[in-house]
Amino acid sequence: MLSGTPKQPTGAAAAAAGTLGPKILALADELAKHSDAPDNLTCLYLTDAHRAAAAQLRKWMQAAGMSAEIDAVGNVVGRYASSTAGAKTLIVASHYDTVRNAGKYDGRLGILAPLVVVEHLNRTGQQLPFHVDVIAFSEEEGVRFGTAYFGSAAIAGRFDKSVLERRDPSGVSVAQLIRAGGGDPDEIPALARRPQDLLGYLEIHIEQGPVLLHENLPVGIVTAIAGGSRYVLAITGKSGHAGTTPMTARHDAAATAAEIVLFVERRCGTAPGLVGTVGQIAVPDGAINVIPGRCELSIDIRADETLKRDAAIADVFAEIERIGKRRGVTIKTTEMQNTPVVPCSPRIQRWLADGITRAGLRPHYLPSGAGHDGILFDGITDVGMLFVRCGNGGVSHSPLESITADDADISARLLLDVLQKLQP
Amino acid sequence: MLSGTPKQPTGAAAAAAGTLGPKILALADELAKHSDAPDNLTCLYLTDAHRAAAAQLRKWMQAAGMSAEIDAVGNVVGRYASSTAGAKTLIVASHYDTVRNAGKYDGRLGILAPLVVVEHLNRTGQQLPFHVDVIAFSEEEGVRFGTAYFGSAAIAGRFDKSVLERRDPSGVSVAQLIRAGGGDPDEIPALARRPQDLLGYLEIHIEQGPVLLHENLPVGIVTAIAGGSRYVLAITGKSGHAGTTPMTARHDAAATAAEIVLFVERRCGTAPGLVGTVGQIAVPDGAINVIPGRCELSIDIRADETLKRDAAIADVFAEIERIGKRRGVTIKTTEMQNTPVVPCSPRIQRWLADGITRAGLRPHYLPSGAGHDGILFDGITDVGMLFVRCGNGGVSHSPLESITADDADISARLLLDVLQKLQP
Repeated sequence: MLSGTPKQPTGAAAAAAGTLGPKILALADELAKHSDAPDNLTCLYLTDAHRAAAAQLRKWMQAAGMSAEIDAVGNVVGRYASSTAGAKTLIVASHYDTVRNAGKYDGRLGILAPLVVVEHLNRTGQQLPFHVDVIAFSEEEGVRFGTAYFGSAAIAGRFDKSVLERRDPSGVSVAQLIRAGGGDPDEIPALARRPQDLLGYLEIHIEQGPVLLHENLPVGIVTAIAGGSRYVLAITGKSGHAGTTPMTARHDAAATAAEIVLFVERRCGTAPGLVGTVGQIAVPDGAINVIPGRCELSIDIRADETLKRDAAIADVFAEIERIGKRRGVTIKTTEMQNTPVVPCSPRIQRWLADGITRAGLRPHYLPSGAGHDGILFDGITDVGMLFVRCGNGGVSHSPLESITADDADISARLLLDVLQKLQP
Repeated sequence: MLSGTPKQPTGAAAAAAGTLGPKILALADELAKHSDAPDNLTCLYLTDAHRAAAAQLRKWMQAAGMSAEIDAVGNVVGRYASSTAGAKTLIVASHYDTVRNAGKYDGRLGILAPLVVVEHLNRTGQQLPFHVDVIAFSEEEGVRFGTAYFGSAAIAGRFDKSVLERRDPSGVSVAQLIRAGGGDPDEIPALARRPQDLLGYLEIHIEQGPVLLHENLPVGIVTAIAGGSRYVLAITGKSGHAGTTPMTARHDAAATAAEIVLFVERRCGTAPGLVGTVGQIAVPDGAINVIPGRCELSIDIRADETLKRDAAIADVFAEIERIGKRRGVTIKTTEMQNTPVVPCSPRIQRWLADGITRAGLRPHYLPSGAGHDGILFDGITDVGMLFVRCGNGGVSHSPLESITADDADISARLLLDVLQKLQP
């Protein structure tokens, strides 16, 4: 028996044991049939496949006992309403758009798990002293328009109106797409929730990494959603003949980039929760026999604590300046993104830890290196996240992304248990 | 007065002093008007511009007192014939094709300098006890068909017939182009010279590097033409989410490449005459937030001695294997080129040194880091090269490539002097 296997469920969640997980996987399979691509799962914001997925989700939500509507920004908002007077709302949400050639669980697990839980609550006649809003956010990946979080930003009251004028590569704007579907962009500001109405924001998400796999645990409690800082660097050295320029007379832009890559790797390896990546590197028009006069690279640095991240960034850029001076090259840096670290609510972490302990599992805490919709709710309401083990070595943004029915089941029963125990 | 300025010429070469250099530069300007590109010099093998340049060269050669023909591979072969019975032939040659967006002197200086020298000999009625064959090779840069030395290979009897079937990006083959110009590819083997007919091979070439500039000398004697070894590497690691994969769980193909780049640089900086370059590096379809699962790079290693080069290559590939193992990535290496080091003939080096000394200059010896047509004549006849100072910091393969009229003049007068003194 694996150390991560929970004891047999007891109490309220026991009734659903073993049935919720397979249902989630079956629904994910069904939802993945709506795709922009014939041979893989691609569901970009407001394509035909995306609209069909939304309609499918609304149908399922209604069948599960929720009122459900598709809002102006494309979110599918289902409510399992409480009859308690003055009830607040717990949002349980994630996104249904995908990257290109995606996995079936990224985002969608966090919609389908609460969906089957509400279905169970409804079928077994269980009322809660708070509303549960299951929200399927329309846009989180940022693929079609190069910027992300349309859906959660609208609900959190942080939708940037200028996004409406962004155009995809075919030239169509966000506003045009919304109107083409019968929606009205002017209604988006009114989608914002009032903080005083909210009990919290909880998101279940596939981990997209190997930590839980290595820990041999089905679920983990997210401590913080890492802040991401992204930069693009352009190095200008001096091109020259690879055969005739002595090593001592070179100003090689690619060798400069190589030093930066290794420093980013080394510096970001000094602390857990800190990661640094050079995902792009290129010598434009490089030739095998020409010393690179130019090299471009990207840097992505994230951490679970702002101070940790900022210290790493400061060190990296100090070193970049030293490297550039020593090699006699110029380095131009453009900041592409800088999102703050969002700490998860200790209160929601405690809900999850208590539920995990009741399930006979060991609570394991880990940061989320990826950004998630939850960051939009920072300062609006308490934010919490539950990670579910990711198979195949932790691969995500890939058709190889996987979860087991058992793990899906554990995460759904945990949610059910937490909802049942929760006293607002 | 600069230390590199020669004393006033005396003797036979004095007659031409100061007139040959400006003539060479004027002819180079004139020849550069034939270009495939409207706004820069590009003269690729057997384009219209290339054929026009060949016709121009033949006309000039004939006007200078040579018999001149364009052969089957596109070489322009001019002969300043000797009347001496059983005279051997000294080939004085270089190429007239160019890279894209080229300089005006790379290759062409080595055609135009002997051209003006022969014109002077002819005009002043000087006979030589050997034939001087001024050959303008049709192809040395390897741009259009990805492989080089068509012209010199044909004359050296080393033309590889399979080259005829190579196609450029538009799909036209070398054989088709030769036939379209009225040539016959079957005649190429007969262009080969017999070693016993040759006195030697001498090439004047712009240095394409900064050494003579730093030495403050107009010309230098090439000791060897570096052997070039070129490789393309494909690194396969494991792609992953830049935010969710801990630094310790990565198999980053770009970081692997970065280590290789810096090792090549470090190892090839350990000996003079040795150079190593990574001119190309790229993460195919890289994304700012994805750990590179693949990275491709090129390696070019050259040295003036075979042992020196081979030791560096062995060290580099041993280190590449260590890096690959340590990082858990696979590295596939493809050898693209491996040309041996060609030592220049001590006899021709002596001719040049004597001439340089007679001109009141200091003989300076240096290797050629670049490959040149002369390597095709290794083992066929004595090979010698004279480098001429390259302005603008030594830049070549660029419109910024430059030589001064004075330096062109010195190199032409040196050639004239060497020819006049030479006793075969």
